[in-house]
Amino acid sequence: MEMSGNWFLESIHPDLAVMLKVRQVLYSGQTAYQKVEVLDSELFGRSLVLDGKTQSTERDEHIYHETLVHPAMLCHPEPKQVFIGGGGEGGALREVLAHRSVERATMIDLDSEVVELCRKYLPNHHQGSFDDPRTNLLHEDARGYLENTSDTYDLIILDLVDPLEGGTAALLYTQEFYSIAKARLNPGGVLVTQSGPAGLLNFTECFTTIFKTLGTVFDQTKAAQVHIPAFETLWGFTIASDTPFTQASEESVDAELARRLSKPAKYYDGESHRNMFALPKFQREGLETETRVNTDADPVFML
Amino acid sequence: MEMSGNWFLESIHPDLAVMLKVRQVLYSGQTAYQKVEVLDSELFGRSLVLDGKTQSTERDEHIYHETLVHPAMLCHPEPKQVFIGGGGEGGALREVLAHRSVERATMIDLDSEVVELCRKYLPNHHQGSFDDPRTNLLHEDARGYLENTSDTYDLIILDLVDPLEGGTAALLYTQEFYSIAKARLNPGGVLVTQSGPAGLLNFTECFTTIFKTLGTVFDQTKAAQVHIPAFETLWGFTIASDTPFTQASEESVDAELARRLSKPAKYYDGESHRNMFALPKFQREGLETETRVNTDADPVFML
Amino acid sequence: MEMSGNWFLESIHPDLAVMLKVRQVLYSGQTAYQKVEVLDSELFGRSLVLDGKTQSTERDEHIYHETLVHPAMLCHPEPKQVFIGGGGEGGALREVLAHRSVERATMIDLDSEVVELCRKYLPNHHQGSFDDPRTNLLHEDARGYLENTSDTYDLIILDLVDPLEGGTAALLYTQEFYSIAKARLNPGGVLVTQSGPAGLLNFTECFTTIFKTLGTVFDQTKAAQVHIPAFETLWGFTIASDTPFTQASEESVDAELARRLSKPAKYYDGESHRNMFALPKFQREGLETETRVNTDADPVFML
Amino acid sequence: MEMSGNWFLESIHPDLAVMLKVRQVLYSGQTAYQKVEVLDSELFGRSLVLDGKTQSTERDEHIYHETLVHPAMLCHPEPKQVFIGGGGEGGALREVLAHRSVERATMIDLDSEVVELCRKYLPNHHQGSFDDPRTNLLHEDARGYLENTSDTYDLIILDLVDPLEGGTAALLYTQEFYSIAKARLNPGGVLVTQSGPAGLLNFTECFTTIFKTLGTVFDQTKAAQVHIPAFETLWGFTIASDTPFTQASEESVDAELARRLSKPAKYYDGESHRNMFALPKFQREGLETETRVNTDADPVFML
Repeated sequence: MEMSGNWFLESIHPDLAVMLKVRQVLYSGQTAYQKVEVLDSELFGRSLVLDGKTQSTERDEHIYHETLVHPAMLCHPEPKQVFIGGGGEGGALREVLAHRSVERATMIDLDSEVVELCRKYLPNHHQGSFDDPRTNLLHEDARGYLENTSDTYDLIILDLVDPLEGGTAALLYTQEFYSIAKARLNPGGVLVTQSGPAGLLNFTECFTTIFKTLGTVFDQTKAAQVHIPAFETLWGFTIASDTPFTQASEESVDAELARRLSKPAKYYDGESHRNMFALPKFQREGLETETRVNTDADPVFML
Repeated sequence: MEMSGNWFLESIHPDLAVMLKVRQVLYSGQTAYQKVEVLDSELFGRSLVLDGKTQSTERDEHIYHETLVHPAMLCHPEPKQVFIGGGGEGGALREVLAHRSVERATMIDLDSEVVELCRKYLPNHHQGSFDDPRTNLLHEDARGYLENTSDTYDLIILDLVDPLEGGTAALLYTQEFYSIAKARLNPGGVLVTQSGPAGLLNFTECFTTIFKTLGTVFDQTKAAQVHIPAFETLWGFTIASDTPFTQASEESVDAELARRLSKPAKYYDGESHRNMFALPKFQREGLETETRVNTDADPVFML
Repeated sequence: MEMSGNWFLESIHPDLAVMLKVRQVLYSGQTAYQKVEVLDSELFGRSLVLDGKTQSTERDEHIYHETLVHPAMLCHPEPKQVFIGGGGEGGALREVLAHRSVERATMIDLDSEVVELCRKYLPNHHQGSFDDPRTNLLHEDARGYLENTSDTYDLIILDLVDPLEGGTAALLYTQEFYSIAKARLNPGGVLVTQSGPAGLLNFTECFTTIFKTLGTVFDQTKAAQVHIPAFETLWGFTIASDTPFTQASEESVDAELARRLSKPAKYYDGESHRNMFALPKFQREGLETETRVNTDADPVFML
Repeated sequence: MEMSGNWFLESIHPDLAVMLKVRQVLYSGQTAYQKVEVLDSELFGRSLVLDGKTQSTERDEHIYHETLVHPAMLCHPEPKQVFIGGGGEGGALREVLAHRSVERATMIDLDSEVVELCRKYLPNHHQGSFDDPRTNLLHEDARGYLENTSDTYDLIILDLVDPLEGGTAALLYTQEFYSIAKARLNPGGVLVTQSGPAGLLNFTECFTTIFKTLGTVFDQTKAAQVHIPAFETLWGFTIASDTPFTQASEESVDAELARRLSKPAKYYDGESHRNMFALPKFQREGLETETRVNTDADPVFML
C-alpha cells in the first residue's frame, strides 16, 4: 500500500479514523453555514464532505438514498406530496421523483451554496432531479418552514446532517420538531429520518434516542439499518406514522417497486428489505431499553 | 480528535486505511509462519493481528465467531464431532463447545506460537476453551491432516486467515481442498468457512469465488453476511453440505439455541439469523454471476 | 513504504505531524504530572514521550544533550557545582559528569515517576549517571528549590519540557524565574536553557522570546541552534551570564574538550561548535527584533 | 490538532512519514516522465511534488535555492555563462539571474510539462525568470546535451530530483556524468549539485557518495548543509572545481553579495555561509570515510 500521497482523514470515533486516498480536492470552501469539500477518489468517486464528515459518495450513495426513501414510500399507498428536509446532493430527491405517484417534491435545504456546489460537482448524484418540473426547491430553515406553512404532505423525508453540537441540524431531531412535522402530515402520512450510526461501536450515539423520541410523538415506529461503505459502519433509519404499518412481504416489495418506480432500484428489493428490517440483537436491545428523549432543551448529540 | 499518540494503521483496500488509537502493543513478534501482534485499545480491547491484518477483537469477536459457528451447527441435527481449521484465538472453539451435543472438538492451527500467545494474552477470547476435556488441539497443516486422518466429522469449521498471496492459508480455499474436507464429513455433515469481505467495495475479492468454488463440490451452499466493526465492513460466510438445508424460521432458531446451548449467545438469535441470510441485492447478484473457481493451480487472492 | 502497522503520530505544528513506525510501546501511563510513554522504534531506538511530545531518543539524544551541556560548560573556566533543572532521562547529567572538574551535580526533576521510568527503560540514555557519587537527585519544583536553597552553582542547566500552556514548566521560562536562578550563580556563573524550536516555521514560538527574556536579566546572552532529527527541525539553546563570553576558536574547543572530558563527545567538537553558533540570518533577525518578554503574568507558550 | 481533513503524506524514510494539512490539490497528473502534484497548504503555500517527493515550497524554497546557487557562484570571480540542469520551478534560475555578471543562463529540464505547470502555478517561485532575455530554456536530457554541445560554462548547477532507482535523474549523479560535465567547464569553472539528505538519519544515502564521486573527478570539493523545513531534515550540497577555493570570510561574502546581486538574498549572508560550511562532526566523518563511488554501472540510490 503506497503511503505517499493525498489522503482525506475522517474521524468516525475519537479513537478511530479512516484514511481515503484522494485524487482531487475539487472544491474546498466555507459557506454561511458550514465547511464544504467536494473530493474525488478512485475508490468512491466524487464525495460531499460537510464540516469534515462525508455525506455521500458517488460509489455508494444509492444504498443510503434508496434505504432512506423507498421503504418509507412503500408505507404509504400512494404518496403524492413529498417533503424533503436537507438532502443537498439531490439523491433523495432523485429517488422520490422515481415514484410515479409523486406530484410535487418540496425540498428545503438551508444552505443554497451547498446545493449549488452539488448541482455543479455531483451530476451523478442528482441526475437532473433539480430540473424536474415536480421539484420545488427552497432554501430556508426546515423547522421554520414547517411551522409556518399550511401545506401538508404524504411523506416527510429528513435527509439531514448528523445532530452535532453546534451544527445546523441539532434542533431537527427533537420531540418538538417531530410534533411540528407530524402536524404537516396528511392522514396516513409517514415520516422517515436518517438516524445516524447503527454499528456496535456507536449505535447508542443517536440511533436509539431518535427512535425513542419518535416513539413519543407517533403511534408507530420502525427502524432499519444498512451498511454504508463510505461511513464504514451500519447506518440507522427510522420510519414513523400514526397509521399501522402493514408487514411487507418480500414478494409485495418487489411487486410494488415494479409498479411504482419509473426507473429500477439498484440496491433495494424484497430481500434487501428483509435485511434492513431484521435488526441485529444488540440494536433491538438498545432500541427497546433506550430512555433518553431528545428535546430542544436537552438534545443528544453525536460524538 | 486528538491526533498525537499511538495508532495502528490497517489497510483495508489500497486506497483505504483505518487508524485505531492504541494503548499498548502487548506483543509484537514473528513466528515461524507470520508476524503476530497483540494490541490493546480503548475502543476494541485486546486484538490479534496477523501479518498486519486484524483477526478479531475483544469488543466484537463474538459477532464473528457466533456467525461462523452457530448457523452452521444448526444445519446439523446433533453435531458431535467437530473439526476447526485455524481459529487460534479459541473463540470458534468456545462457541463450538457451548453446544451440549459436542463430544469432541478437534482444532488444528498450524502456528502453535500464535495459539500460545492467544492463550496468554486473550483470555476473554478463549475463556478457558483450550482446557475443555472435549478439546483436541493439534498444530499441523489442516489440509495434510484431513488428507491423512481416518476421523470423520459432523461439522468442519474453517476459521482461517484470508487467502493472501504467499500467506499460510492460500491452499485452504480451493476446490481440491474442499474435496478433501468433504471426504471427512459424516453423512449429513456440514462445512462452513469464513469467506472474506462482503461489503460493496470488496465482495468480489473472495466472497463470491469461495461461494462458487464450494458450489462445485457440494450440492447445497448458502451464504451469510454480517457487519464486523473491527473489519470496518460486512463479512461473508459460506455453509456447504450435500444434505438439503431446512429453511430455519426465526422461532425455530430461538428454540434450537435455547435447547442446544449451555450458555446464551450474545449476538445470534432468530432475527439476527434473518438479517445474516437476507443478502443485499449486490451480493446476490455477485454470487449468482461469479464464474471463477479457486483451484490449487489458479487460486483467487485477496488484495 | 508499508503503511500497515503501529505508528506514533506527533503534531509539530497544527498543520504538520510526523508518523514514526513503532515496534513496541514499552510503557504508557500517567504520573501525577503528565502522560508518559516509552516507545521503541527501529529508526530511533527507545524514546521518551511526555504529554505526546518526544523528549529524546536513543539515536540522537547525544546531539541534544551535548549541545545543551558542553558549550555552556566551556563558558566557565572550571565548573565544579552544577545544577540541572529537569533532565529526567539522565542524558544531561551524563554529559555534566563527563567533565572532570565537576564535584557535585544537583538534578531536580519534579516528576520522580518519570525519572524511575527512565532509569528502568532508558539505560543507554543515563548510562549509570544516576548512580555516580557526585549526583544529588531531588524531586521537587526547581523554582521553589532555587528560591529557598542557599547553595550556589557555577552552572545552571535547564533541560525542561517546552513551555506549554498548562504544562509543568510554564513558569520556568520567565523573567522572574531567571532572576531567581541568577541569584544562585557563583561569580562567573553561567546559565543555559533549552529554548524550543528554531527552524523557519516555528523559531518565533519561544526561541526568540526566551533569548529576549534572558537578555533582560543577564548582561551577556548567546544563542545556538542544532538539528535534532527526532524533533524534525532545528532546536534552540540560550546561554546567559554576567561575565563576558570569550570567543571560542575551533582549536580551543577541541583542546578544552580533550582536557576536560573523561569520555569523548560524539557530536560536539570545534567545527560543530562553529556550526551551532553561526545562526542562519532569519534567526538572527528574529532574535534581534523580538520585543516580547516572558513574565509570570504574561508568558509566551508554545503552540 | 484537528485530524479530520486533507493531508499530504510523504515518506522520508521507510519508518518515518510527514503529514501536511493541505488546502487544495491545485494540480495532479502524470507527465511523460513523472507524477506531478501542485499542492497548496497554509503552512508552506504552494509546493511542487514529483513522484510523491516534495521538491520545494513557497515558504522555504529560498533557503534551498540560495544555498544551491550563491556559494558556488561566489567560488567564481565573474560567472557569465551558467548551465542549470533540472530546476523546473525556476527558483535556481531566478537566483542565477540575480547575479549581475550573468550573460546567459541555459536551463535544461527534461520535462517540459513540469516547467509549464510551474510557470502557471508557481509564480512566486520563478518570479518571471523564464521571461528574462538571458534565459535559454531547453527540454531534453541534460546528460545528452552536455555530451553533444560545444558550449562551455563558468558554472554548472545541478538542481535535480534525487537519484531514485528508476527515476529520471539516476544517471546524473555518476562519475561518468561528472566527467562529461567537467569537460564543458571553462577554466576556473565550478560545478555544484544538490546532494540529498544530510541529517543524522540519512546522510549516507547519497550525500557522502556524491561527495566521494565528485572527488574522483575534480581536484577540489567542498560540502555544505542547510536545514530545509519542507524536507524535515538537513540537506546537502557539493561544490567541485579544479581551481582551488579561496576561504571566504564572512565579511567577504557580505561584500561580494552586495556587489554582485541585483536583489538582496533572503537567507544567505556571511554568517549563514559560515553555518553552511561548518559541518557537524558526523557528516565530516561520513564524508571522509565514504568509499562508494557512483558509476553508471553501479549507482547508489536513495531509499
